[in-house]
Amino acid sequence: MPEFLKLVAPNEALLRLLQALPEKTSDEELVDAIDALGRVTAQAVKAPHALPAFSRSSMDGFAVRASDTFGASESIPGFLTVVGEVPMGAEPAFALQPGQAALIHTGGMLPDNADAVVMVEQTEQAPGGEISILKGVAAGENVILVGEDVIAGQTVIPGGSRVRPAEVGGCMALGICQLRVFQKPRVGILSSGDEIIPPDQEPVLGQVRNVNTYSLAALVKEAGGEPVLYGIVPDKLEIMKASAAKALAECQVVVITAGSSASARDMTAEVIASLGSPGVLVHGVNVRPGKPTILAVCDGKAVIGLPGNPVSALVIAGLFVVPVIRRLLGEQADGPRKTCPAQLSLNIPSQAGREDWIAVKLTASGLHGDGEESWTAEPIFSKSNLIFSLVAADGLVRIPPDATGLEAGERVQVFLF
Amino acid sequence: MPEFLKLVAPNEALLRLLQALPEKTSDEELVDAIDALGRVTAQAVKAPHALPAFSRSSMDGFAVRASDTFGASESIPGFLTVVGEVPMGAEPAFALQPGQAALIHTGGMLPDNADAVVMVEQTEQAPGGEISILKGVAAGENVILVGEDVIAGQTVIPGGSRVRPAEVGGCMALGICQLRVFQKPRVGILSSGDEIIPPDQEPVLGQVRNVNTYSLAALVKEAGGEPVLYGIVPDKLEIMKASAAKALAECQVVVITAGSSASARDMTAEVIASLGSPGVLVHGVNVRPGKPTILAVCDGKAVIGLPGNPVSALVIAGLFVVPVIRRLLGEQADGPRKTCPAQLSLNIPSQAGREDWIAVKLTASGLHGDGEESWTAEPIFSKSNLIFSLVAADGLVRIPPDATGLEAGERVQVFLF
Repeated sequence: MPEFLKLVAPNEALLRLLQALPEKTSDEELVDAIDALGRVTAQAVKAPHALPAFSRSSMDGFAVRASDTFGASESIPGFLTVVGEVPMGAEPAFALQPGQAALIHTGGMLPDNADAVVMVEQTEQAPGGEISILKGVAAGENVILVGEDVIAGQTVIPGGSRVRPAEVGGCMALGICQLRVFQKPRVGILSSGDEIIPPDQEPVLGQVRNVNTYSLAALVKEAGGEPVLYGIVPDKLEIMKASAAKALAECQVVVITAGSSASARDMTAEVIASLGSPGVLVHGVNVRPGKPTILAVCDGKAVIGLPGNPVSALVIAGLFVVPVIRRLLGEQADGPRKTCPAQLSLNIPSQAGREDWIAVKLTASGLHGDGEESWTAEPIFSKSNLIFSLVAADGLVRIPPDATGLEAGERVQVFLF
Repeated sequence: MPEFLKLVAPNEALLRLLQALPEKTSDEELVDAIDALGRVTAQAVKAPHALPAFSRSSMDGFAVRASDTFGASESIPGFLTVVGEVPMGAEPAFALQPGQAALIHTGGMLPDNADAVVMVEQTEQAPGGEISILKGVAAGENVILVGEDVIAGQTVIPGGSRVRPAEVGGCMALGICQLRVFQKPRVGILSSGDEIIPPDQEPVLGQVRNVNTYSLAALVKEAGGEPVLYGIVPDKLEIMKASAAKALAECQVVVITAGSSASARDMTAEVIASLGSPGVLVHGVNVRPGKPTILAVCDGKAVIGLPGNPVSALVIAGLFVVPVIRRLLGEQADGPRKTCPAQLSLNIPSQAGREDWIAVKLTASGLHGDGEESWTAEPIFSKSNLIFSLVAADGLVRIPPDATGLEAGERVQVFLF
């Protein structure tokens, strides 16, 4: 079976894969909101009540009827009678009559009839239980009104949202102590290659330890999936078919790293083609590293054949496996990618028509005028895509297909790991 | 006790805090390499042997003695006798004599005397078990030499490194299945405020649920720490002192969110001052949100008083609590921050002399010429720093102290959550 009949551009390849996948997401589960950190909401979260639930002061000062303070200034202060102090955490026992004010603390509840707060700095103690107001306030000033944060019934977190610290806190504010999130998609990982041995074994000459199973498992975890390890599968067609079929039955995504030889890669393609329809969608992607990538959908599940080279496997999994996990987690859209702006230290050549991803190391190169660190990106050239070239790197620079390289001194966005 | 005697710039405040902390890091523990993802190495990892441990082919083709191919070209090919095939995962049973070649697959071990590989595409089958070489190769061509990735004894992962998928894979390649990492620093979190109730309770008018304990716990987790929750402490001096002292004894960092009123904040400062020496280093930071921040070192441990406002608490914890956790994890330096370049949709005013952090929402605004998404950052103005303003945001834009704001259309770096 000839490889690379037609190389497909990476964006186009991903589109084909995602379009051939059913719209189905992972099943849901209920977890404590604090444990939902990093998970993805399976349903929109709606506010059961308004926040704040009562009008609160946003300053330390005096609750007033704004109309009582109109025109007050340092030269002609207004005078109000202080009728009490608003307790923290309780409803004030009094309402304000015209000409009255009440001491209030940040977060305190406005008494009935009060509609603004005068900051303590703009008041002075006056004789006879009065205060002088040195600056008038408008209605609503220094007050957080009922529902100003959210109103009852409002969608506060859309479905398909990654839960961050702010979401955890927001749920607590509303008394929502559990969240429905998507289960972590199970991603089966198979490694093939007769030269591969488990990492805890001592290789003889000619053997190498299994890297891909574990680096990919870590990547799957980071992306919000649950890696399921199927270990090393011998380069024998029937055994690989059986192992891959088992993984496909037990998981929502299957990733197979191919043996490194052309014949082993061809066998991977044949195995994937046998797993279900429509089968292989893309065989060969116009990207370096990672040309011998296979993208397939078999009976509604994504099956991805990655190159055996550890760097290619990890870079390509970032381009294709991670988006599939995100899709299963119902994430609405590809959010902004995490980057760092930097200045390239060396020229990077690239072949026009092919997208290249180059590992770079970032070095702080001093401060910008605004106090922010600026960074230099040094390409890590490595003729053979060695795993420790990625260990030494902070991220990747993308060279688009229409470019023939990047020049030293150019500003680039580094996609951080 | 007067607040804000002197506001300190955020960078200067952090420096004072870190300089007053002892150089001590968290204790170490041994974990499986795969579970070390996201943890920080407590020791440098050194390679027990070279990688690769034997010279490997990086192509499918023929292992040769390079000198036998010198001058070979399509018009005048060289002819070599194929003496065998290198098995995958084993040492070849033969050495190459002058004029000989061996079939080899990507990742295969070079036979003795071979020093280069001719790609299969640059060979042709010839009669009598020979191949014709259509292009000469130099010694080392298409070969990964012993030690080209790492040499024996080399530091492959420095101490103080965050473990990513590449590090997991790299350890496996070397047979390092366990890693010494720093224990997660225990960060005690106390919330005060008489108006605060636990999130699973129903507030009466005047009460609000506890947000900060949980959003801060999530942030601590994200940063690699272990949050220890001490719940809500009443605004009573002796009770707060006792609770804070208990947290300080049990944790490596203590975070106290102050009640929202000025008197409650003063009490927090008094509590922190009582915990140990040298005590409060900074009281009041020239930043918005978050002015009433307290930074202290008490008997060698960082104690941080955060504003009660949920947005201020979370933003300020990012500026001061996260770096303290990183310090305890022995992280060598502040690495590059994760940002996304964007164009501002609206003017943001700011007071000169003060650093402002503004929450923004990112919206995709089309593709750049190079196929990358470009982004618009829309500031989320919220007069009262409401928690759901952060839920709606993707990140923060920093306005440096010497600026009086940013203009619509300006390019900014958004610090992603």
